[in-house]
Amino acid sequence: MTPYEYLKETAGKRMDELFKFLQFPSVSAKSEHKKDMLDCAAWLTDHLKAIGLTARIYPTGGHPVVYAEYTADKKAPTVLYYGHYDVQPPEPLELWKSDPFKPVIRKGNIFARGGTDDKGQVFAHVKGVEAVLKAAGTLPVNVKFLIEGEEEVSSVSLPKFIRKNKKMLAADIVVVSDTAQYSSTLPAVTYGLRGVVAAEVMVSGPNRDVHSGSYGGAITNPIHALCAMVGQLHDKNGKVAVPGFYSRVKPVTKWERKQFKRLPFNQEAYRKSLGVPALAGEKGYSTIERTWSRPALDVNGITGGYQGEGGKTIIPSWASCKITMRLVPDMDPTDVSNKLERYLKKIAPKSVTLKIKKHGGAPGVVVPMDGPWLDAAGRAIKVGFGKNPLFIKEGGSIPIVSDFKTILGLDTLLIGFGLHEGNAHSPNESFRVVDFENGCRTAAALLFELAKVKA
Amino acid sequence: MTPYEYLKETAGKRMDELFKFLQFPSVSAKSEHKKDMLDCAAWLTDHLKAIGLTARIYPTGGHPVVYAEYTADKKAPTVLYYGHYDVQPPEPLELWKSDPFKPVIRKGNIFARGGTDDKGQVFAHVKGVEAVLKAAGTLPVNVKFLIEGEEEVSSVSLPKFIRKNKKMLAADIVVVSDTAQYSSTLPAVTYGLRGVVAAEVMVSGPNRDVHSGSYGGAITNPIHALCAMVGQLHDKNGKVAVPGFYSRVKPVTKWERKQFKRLPFNQEAYRKSLGVPALAGEKGYSTIERTWSRPALDVNGITGGYQGEGGKTIIPSWASCKITMRLVPDMDPTDVSNKLERYLKKIAPKSVTLKIKKHGGAPGVVVPMDGPWLDAAGRAIKVGFGKNPLFIKEGGSIPIVSDFKTILGLDTLLIGFGLHEGNAHSPNESFRVVDFENGCRTAAALLFELAKVKA
Repeated sequence: MTPYEYLKETAGKRMDELFKFLQFPSVSAKSEHKKDMLDCAAWLTDHLKAIGLTARIYPTGGHPVVYAEYTADKKAPTVLYYGHYDVQPPEPLELWKSDPFKPVIRKGNIFARGGTDDKGQVFAHVKGVEAVLKAAGTLPVNVKFLIEGEEEVSSVSLPKFIRKNKKMLAADIVVVSDTAQYSSTLPAVTYGLRGVVAAEVMVSGPNRDVHSGSYGGAITNPIHALCAMVGQLHDKNGKVAVPGFYSRVKPVTKWERKQFKRLPFNQEAYRKSLGVPALAGEKGYSTIERTWSRPALDVNGITGGYQGEGGKTIIPSWASCKITMRLVPDMDPTDVSNKLERYLKKIAPKSVTLKIKKHGGAPGVVVPMDGPWLDAAGRAIKVGFGKNPLFIKEGGSIPIVSDFKTILGLDTLLIGFGLHEGNAHSPNESFRVVDFENGCRTAAALLFELAKVKA
Repeated sequence: MTPYEYLKETAGKRMDELFKFLQFPSVSAKSEHKKDMLDCAAWLTDHLKAIGLTARIYPTGGHPVVYAEYTADKKAPTVLYYGHYDVQPPEPLELWKSDPFKPVIRKGNIFARGGTDDKGQVFAHVKGVEAVLKAAGTLPVNVKFLIEGEEEVSSVSLPKFIRKNKKMLAADIVVVSDTAQYSSTLPAVTYGLRGVVAAEVMVSGPNRDVHSGSYGGAITNPIHALCAMVGQLHDKNGKVAVPGFYSRVKPVTKWERKQFKRLPFNQEAYRKSLGVPALAGEKGYSTIERTWSRPALDVNGITGGYQGEGGKTIIPSWASCKITMRLVPDMDPTDVSNKLERYLKKIAPKSVTLKIKKHGGAPGVVVPMDGPWLDAAGRAIKVGFGKNPLFIKEGGSIPIVSDFKTILGLDTLLIGFGLHEGNAHSPNESFRVVDFENGCRTAAALLFELAKVKA
């Protein structure tokens, strides 16, 4: 019996098991679900044991980590799977068509909180491993599962856990299925993510809100100062104007530019779906290049003075804004943060007081396209989904992926089985049955393909 | 008996009457005080009748207007007094040292809501007229009192009332005591006010807040667009950069510049009291010139995106700000508003949608320094306060003063008996007994001085 035949035969049982996994309201953000979190972790640990792995629960400062492993052959490559068993809060409940924790299948979709993010996706790997183990009696690679319970609350405990357990987590490659396919008909491997780093800017003027009639024209209005500064964060060509911002940014390669051009992408449909009069960005780059392979700087919020109905004739005491920068590989979050701070200090008028709060960040990551790992992932998807995947990037950030790189020295394969339409973080989250099944087959195939890499 | 002797003799009775006037909680902003407003207006009308004027209450769409007059000699000049019997809400009550509507004298100050704004000040004119009438049996000028009940709610009904009663209100000069002396030892005549005009700016981007990771770099962030626009509202020399903004602005005259330099003004104390690192404004002008004789533009509030604790990685759907411009004489509010709109439309990126809401405004006003009215006011203050007044301006606006100019064609003498320290609009509002007494004497003297103008 092949693993694929095993998967076919056990499809019903497997769906029942996934439903059980989905029924735990493992909402990490809410303390009232602490016991549900523990129950879910215990069930998952038992399940991993039942399929033949050694598994245990590791307590952390927050919700526990589930860890499991199977050592087949010390000379074979070791694969570290990362996923999470916690889910987003389901609210607003009134917008759900069915109970978020009572999974149902409607029109080929499994509806449940955590369906695609990330229980359904990580479970496909568990089932792929099970299929190979049951069919072959062993695995072609060594596997380790690291399934955390705090992904939806910024993975607060995980970096420390990884640092403390470097030896236990040692591997050759990380596999994560927590992204999406390119579209409902185009599976994909995501080989790059942008990093992110945040800062807050506070500009202070007079020690109280003052009358704009009495003082207007005599002191610098903090809103004017802040706006003038924000206005100088980009130049006329849409480039970030912070000196040295691009110093470590490598040009978009010819190969990548060619790949991106091949992707089905309807610029006009994209513009319409956003409702903007025109797209805009860094001169000389396409929309896909701008969001996947070029860094960006965005003010996420700005506030100052009177914002209610009508008017209030004041010069406010202060104005502030929140900034995030999206980084491409080789850009260092701290370095970029410092450059922003230096620039803002330089351009701030001397007639206001400037305070900058720098937050931590994560660098961008990319899996080398010339390495063997992506090829292996591509071949596995071909087996699982019946077609070659696209190789894509993602403008957003998964900070834990850079922790794997910096702490464990490992690249990560991002193989998304879900869809953007799967409503992760929204009501009526769903995961297509066909994608779950194709995902399980891909997961099984991946074990064999990864085994070839070191061979 | 002279009017001044009369005032001296009746000081006790006069203070009792002022206390009665101050006891009405005539809070125009709150509907629960509607009856108090009517009671206060009735009391004031009766009082004006009692001192020998014809008086009546005029209903309006809102709180009634109290009108009184005395015709002495049709050939004599006619003086129109403007004031208001309504007061600001007294809240927060816990910060008052005594009941805001139970006047008390502590250390030479009358503490009560409305003490200085404006019951105490307008009552000084009522008492000045009474003193002259009692002492001389008639008045050297004709007088008209227009005392409204909606000044603290933007004089909503008054412009219409003035337009409807142009003939009744016809006069040669308006007298208003609703400003302040320059300091506690320096009485003043205010001969100019800045006008004001307001606008709101809304910049829209994507049709919803979008993820700054996925979209950052591909669309124009409405906050960036708005900030860049606000950043272009002033040039490097602190001038307003709206084309044509200064086209009707006359230069500060040599005479005025000289007068302002003579005023006791401590730049460093001013800076310290505001807590700013440095003063700043239009190059080539002093602080007093910047606030009294030059126009200004201020953003009173700005808002957009996420403003709570922590961060949220979005590009917001929109950003907006509220703007007011302070105008000097000859600048037309509508014209300036249109220029701002034209400029903003020109500099807005084509990748966002811009909406501008223009509000009404009032032009700046100035009483000609070469006319006889200011001289007359100066001489009256010399009689009342024992020293020559300073001639000053004010950066704020009293829109009704421009209505007197535009509807009735009349200049206004702004003779403030109060002090900036009198806490108008704040808890523990007060009016110095000595300023009330000097005000009454000034009011009496003013009748004789104004009578000389047409003589």
